[in-house]
Amino acid sequence: MVIGIDVGGTTIKFGVIKLNGEIAFAKRIDTMQAAAAGITDAMIKEVKSIIAEFPEVEGIGIGFPGLVSKDRKNVILLPNVPGVANEEVVAKFKKELPKLIVKIENDAKCAALGELQFGEAKGMTDFLFISLGTGVGGGYICDKKLFLGSRGNATEVGHMFTPMEGKTVEQHLGLHQITEYANNLAKDPAFATSDLSKQNINPKLIFEAATKGDKLALAVWEHVGKALGYGLISMMRFSDVNKFVIGGGVAGAFDFFIPQTEKTIRENLPAYYCDGIEFRKASDGENAGILGAASLIYHSYGDN
Amino acid sequence: MVIGIDVGGTTIKFGVIKLNGEIAFAKRIDTMQAAAAGITDAMIKEVKSIIAEFPEVEGIGIGFPGLVSKDRKNVILLPNVPGVANEEVVAKFKKELPKLIVKIENDAKCAALGELQFGEAKGMTDFLFISLGTGVGGGYICDKKLFLGSRGNATEVGHMFTPMEGKTVEQHLGLHQITEYANNLAKDPAFATSDLSKQNINPKLIFEAATKGDKLALAVWEHVGKALGYGLISMMRFSDVNKFVIGGGVAGAFDFFIPQTEKTIRENLPAYYCDGIEFRKASDGENAGILGAASLIYHSYGDN
Repeated sequence: MVIGIDVGGTTIKFGVIKLNGEIAFAKRIDTMQAAAAGITDAMIKEVKSIIAEFPEVEGIGIGFPGLVSKDRKNVILLPNVPGVANEEVVAKFKKELPKLIVKIENDAKCAALGELQFGEAKGMTDFLFISLGTGVGGGYICDKKLFLGSRGNATEVGHMFTPMEGKTVEQHLGLHQITEYANNLAKDPAFATSDLSKQNINPKLIFEAATKGDKLALAVWEHVGKALGYGLISMMRFSDVNKFVIGGGVAGAFDFFIPQTEKTIRENLPAYYCDGIEFRKASDGENAGILGAASLIYHSYGDN
Repeated sequence: MVIGIDVGGTTIKFGVIKLNGEIAFAKRIDTMQAAAAGITDAMIKEVKSIIAEFPEVEGIGIGFPGLVSKDRKNVILLPNVPGVANEEVVAKFKKELPKLIVKIENDAKCAALGELQFGEAKGMTDFLFISLGTGVGGGYICDKKLFLGSRGNATEVGHMFTPMEGKTVEQHLGLHQITEYANNLAKDPAFATSDLSKQNINPKLIFEAATKGDKLALAVWEHVGKALGYGLISMMRFSDVNKFVIGGGVAGAFDFFIPQTEKTIRENLPAYYCDGIEFRKASDGENAGILGAASLIYHSYGDN
């Protein structure tokens, strides 16, 4: 039994996870409140109270939304979580809880491991996990191992460039950017009849409108699919992977954007790359973060 | 002692290479003439005659300009060499020369290994080699091993997108594309006084003009540096490498374009990525191809 902790900009989620992926216990705390006391200290306090109830816990995996040190001991930088920079997270935990295995990782990389351990990627040897949420993250399993790159923070895929308007992947596919694109498209007279254009547009509404065949919504997802396709082309050229697992909230609209993603790739890459290409929707959901963090305990890679 | 073979679109170069990188013998044949008999058969014939003179040869490394199978036994596709597709190169060699170790690899990946074994990258654990020639290729040494990616043909970096006009790295940095850019710039009245604009422009002339301070030439190299910088940014985001070795003919102008490459990277990436960033000019030259191919024999990675 292990504890998975998913550190986000808004909440920190805790879960006690069984080896089969079952969640024995779950809790969340407010990130800003935790930050006031110090994120790591706040997490240690929660973990201690969880262990009092679940003494069979053997390890703790923590996913952070940012850069971690190559030796996976320290957090380097979290853009959206205050007060955590160059923090010796593992040492602090080990001092208070010396008997437990403690591992930390970037959250999108955790999610990739979680899909491999508990989710849609079970049994796959190679795949690129892309997380489409507020931002865009990635985790690459190469030959059954998590790819860390040279300095430990590989697959920051949201910041790679696309050929579309010179923007990065995230500048097209971030939650706010999708909304902005939809709002701009709604001004087009061609979409004047769309119900969507009369509402306060957000990705959830765009998804729902697409299920009803709304043309504006479908055009937005086509754009998303195309931008993702161009992003993946550069990633394929670098890593020669052609199996993809797509997670994060935006993946809810998987069926609406993936056809355009695949079309864009097939139009731009030689047959070699497209042979056996595969897209899977992550098993994701509410608990993906804690499951991913928990799965850290079961994987060896790098110094981790 | 090993034989290194560098297969190019114009010539096939053979070299007998000593462990210290000394070249005991070198020869080249015409690719088109070889293709008439079958490239592999032509190479075997040459190797046999070389071995008659150098019986101490223990292995043969061959670099091909294109895609090779993941198990490094077969050539899949060579865009610029006729008649070599899905060719069982290693099996053919082993049949005729059963006592020798025979390895094949993509030529830019060979060059990366060559820089590690004999050249400017000696002792480096992590670096990205970029070959700037007629086309743009790459080889990535990650934690002392050649990175093959998931299916064996990683780091086709020339085909990754840049944010500049939606073009790929090669669409900016290929030899012909640099010439085209210079020709277009020469039409600009601002460069009317450039001596270069009065000549039949080619990259060698652009380099020579730059050494004399020609403004047109310097503007071309600034453009090259910028495009390379943007290309490297995407590669850094994917692989988190920040040591680069730049080879190929265009690297002759290294000193003229690298400052702009580094500037572009520093302007676009957080400090984490730029900390310790390093650019080296490959030791390259005429024999880089055969040295790279020979170095294959000294490296174990993947199934190779």
